Amino acid sequence: MSVRITGVEVHDVRFPTAAAGDGSDAINRGDYSATYVELTTDAGVTGSGLTFTNGRGNEITCAAVRALAHHVAGRTVEEIEADQAGFSRSITADVQLRWLGPEKGVIHMAAGALINAVWDLRARLAGKPMWRYLAELPAGEIVASIDFRHITDALTPGEARDLLEKNAIGYDDRLAELERNGFPAYTTSVGWLGYPDAKVRELTRRAVADGWTAVKMKVGGPIEDDVRRARIIRDELPPGALLMMDANQVWDVDEAIEAMRRLAPFDPYWIEEPTHADDVLGHARVARAVNPVRVATGEVAANRVIFKQMLQAGALQVCQVDACRVGGVNEVLAILLLAAKFGVPVCPHAGGVGLCEYVQHLAIFDYLRAGRSLDGRMIEYVDHLHEHFTDPVTVVDGRYRLPVKPGYSVEMKPGSIAGFRFPDGPAWR
Amino acid sequence: MSVRITGVEVHDVRFPTAAAGDGSDAINRGDYSATYVELTTDAGVTGSGLTFTNGRGNEITCAAVRALAHHVAGRTVEEIEADQAGFSRSITADVQLRWLGPEKGVIHMAAGALINAVWDLRARLAGKPMWRYLAELPAGEIVASIDFRHITDALTPGEARDLLEKNAIGYDDRLAELERNGFPAYTTSVGWLGYPDAKVRELTRRAVADGWTAVKMKVGGPIEDDVRRARIIRDELPPGALLMMDANQVWDVDEAIEAMRRLAPFDPYWIEEPTHADDVLGHARVARAVNPVRVATGEVAANRVIFKQMLQAGALQVCQVDACRVGGVNEVLAILLLAAKFGVPVCPHAGGVGLCEYVQHLAIFDYLRAGRSLDGRMIEYVDHLHEHFTDPVTVVDGRYRLPVKPGYSVEMKPGSIAGFRFPDGPAWR
Repeated sequence: MSVRITGVEVHDVRFPTAAAGDGSDAINRGDYSATYVELTTDAGVTGSGLTFTNGRGNEITCAAVRALAHHVAGRTVEEIEADQAGFSRSITADVQLRWLGPEKGVIHMAAGALINAVWDLRARLAGKPMWRYLAELPAGEIVASIDFRHITDALTPGEARDLLEKNAIGYDDRLAELERNGFPAYTTSVGWLGYPDAKVRELTRRAVADGWTAVKMKVGGPIEDDVRRARIIRDELPPGALLMMDANQVWDVDEAIEAMRRLAPFDPYWIEEPTHADDVLGHARVARAVNPVRVATGEVAANRVIFKQMLQAGALQVCQVDACRVGGVNEVLAILLLAAKFGVPVCPHAGGVGLCEYVQHLAIFDYLRAGRSLDGRMIEYVDHLHEHFTDPVTVVDGRYRLPVKPGYSVEMKPGSIAGFRFPDGPAWR
Repeated sequence: MSVRITGVEVHDVRFPTAAAGDGSDAINRGDYSATYVELTTDAGVTGSGLTFTNGRGNEITCAAVRALAHHVAGRTVEEIEADQAGFSRSITADVQLRWLGPEKGVIHMAAGALINAVWDLRARLAGKPMWRYLAELPAGEIVASIDFRHITDALTPGEARDLLEKNAIGYDDRLAELERNGFPAYTTSVGWLGYPDAKVRELTRRAVADGWTAVKMKVGGPIEDDVRRARIIRDELPPGALLMMDANQVWDVDEAIEAMRRLAPFDPYWIEEPTHADDVLGHARVARAVNPVRVATGEVAANRVIFKQMLQAGALQVCQVDACRVGGVNEVLAILLLAAKFGVPVCPHAGGVGLCEYVQHLAIFDYLRAGRSLDGRMIEYVDHLHEHFTDPVTVVDGRYRLPVKPGYSVEMKPGSIAGFRFPDGPAWR
């Protein structure tokens, strides 16, 4: 039976988070928003995808989705499945639109939202949560869904296939373990730059009481403030708990090295985005200088070519792929396999709108089929905006429970779309 | 006297070039278009800027300009001049919009169009062509206009100032030389992939007759076709003429090295965009492998951080900065100074819509104040769409003549805007 995609709808949905100081870091601040894509089909089943933005400008990614939608509308799922890399390349390398990236920024984020919506549709048609749908695909089909252009110097299709086949060993045991214990997580809710010290202390205490053993703080303000806040959080954490730090690209390379010298006494587990996201060589220098502190990056790494280089250069020790900045599941698969080949753990970026919902599936797939270890693996968790999704994440004692409903978990409630649609929803009128 | 910017207008202007095969290469094809920005002021003087796109999607960059316009509208030229790096950063690091790049793709191209329009306005107010306006600025003012964030590991403000001061020596002689002889150029009009062999031969003959001693062909199709076309062009060129090749990123790293082995017999002067534009390490590998053929890149290099790394890694021997992909004149200045520090010649990317008009000013400034040499310097020239500008380039015997009218030369004729405005202009109705 062939299912045809009959319509592509785009909604500009924005939540007024800026006023509360939630989500403020050294370089971003805004109203957490989603460019939300709904696919309709002649089979009645729908597909949902989104990309996250910081508010103003969400109309730009919406416009980009509209410019790309014709590559999806009218196609059958069968056709798409028959030439998956070709399908993804039709969107990411459109001869008129590629110039606007290429494969980066607005146009690539829009590609990610659309491509993810197609995967959500496929998983729903199969009646499986995305992680299971992906994890049960044969190695050949996973490889066929990847556009290897520009990464074959680091990973060939043959190597990817071998890796997937070899790393499938022990699948059942790993799945049983996840079903029993869930997937490890850490929380970013304790230390936004917008929060006063007392709130940081209180939130850290509460996080410890809630079972969190790994927390992340934002750094990159005045260094004395960072040091003071690090001390507060470290004081409240039990021995052995992990403290991650996130600079959101605010530092120059030498500043990053200097700042981390000041913050080293608080035993950071990783430093995230120490400098500009495009700076492969800069991250490599920082990584050498701050060792044994790990360098983590990826939430704004534009595409597989940037990740490839970060891995080739020894510039990252923690791969924080985002589910919807790159070209959707297809490109994420390329990045997970690159990370597995280079032996670098994947701790996906989350937070924002729907990112936790998305990335849990990716981390679970990675454990089952690619990375094959929980050592150093954690999914980011931020406790806001989950109430807008029909299948929100479940996090218990600092661990994600496996999703069970079919699909990729980013379907928004109709009431949330209507209520927060910009500029005509009641929240914005 | 303080001049206030009272309005920012954006026009979606598209020229139907795709049907003719002009501008087709291995990876781009489309209707050459401009996101065209007009600033109005309370002094009556206007400012024009644009960014180039390949057609579909021009509405996306227009939307991005609208999202950024409030950083420009209502400000005075005095205010902007008093804090130039701050002004440019207010646009390129807007806390809600930076996420959409950061500093890359749609949002950064829109920043470039806006920032360039402000520079055009400033040059017009000063009554000077942009190259002269820039070249006559004191070193301190040039340095103050640059946002050094994320490049200080390669170039500090102090180094930039020293370089500008040192390289000003001989200014008058260099200017006299340019006034006498113009600036060297090369033509890309002979070898688009869309052209049949006979047309390639005919165009090469005509180019030689017109005085061109350097021409560029597109490569990256089937290698036998590239070899055959290279032979045709080399046959028609006189001894000593330069033949450049441009792959527009179509190859993987190893493919690029292999293809250049096949094309080496035709003595290419450079290979342009041998692989993905983001691949610093890949370009470095290609550069080592194809030496003494130079690697040229830059037309889609996203920002100063990518150029910085390309230079640090020895990945490019020819810096092809684009006038409006990066964040306007301010960021171009950073890139020109980085190239000068690393001793790499600048041959700006042109063609498209208005790019020749733009970059002539940058190359002239570079010669007068930064690079200080014509050795290996050439401005790209493509002979289409100049008729739409009020101050089009003048190219005689393969050399650009110095612009004399005030401004940055990208003001479009009102009739062209009205005639080709999408979707309501007569060309599109």
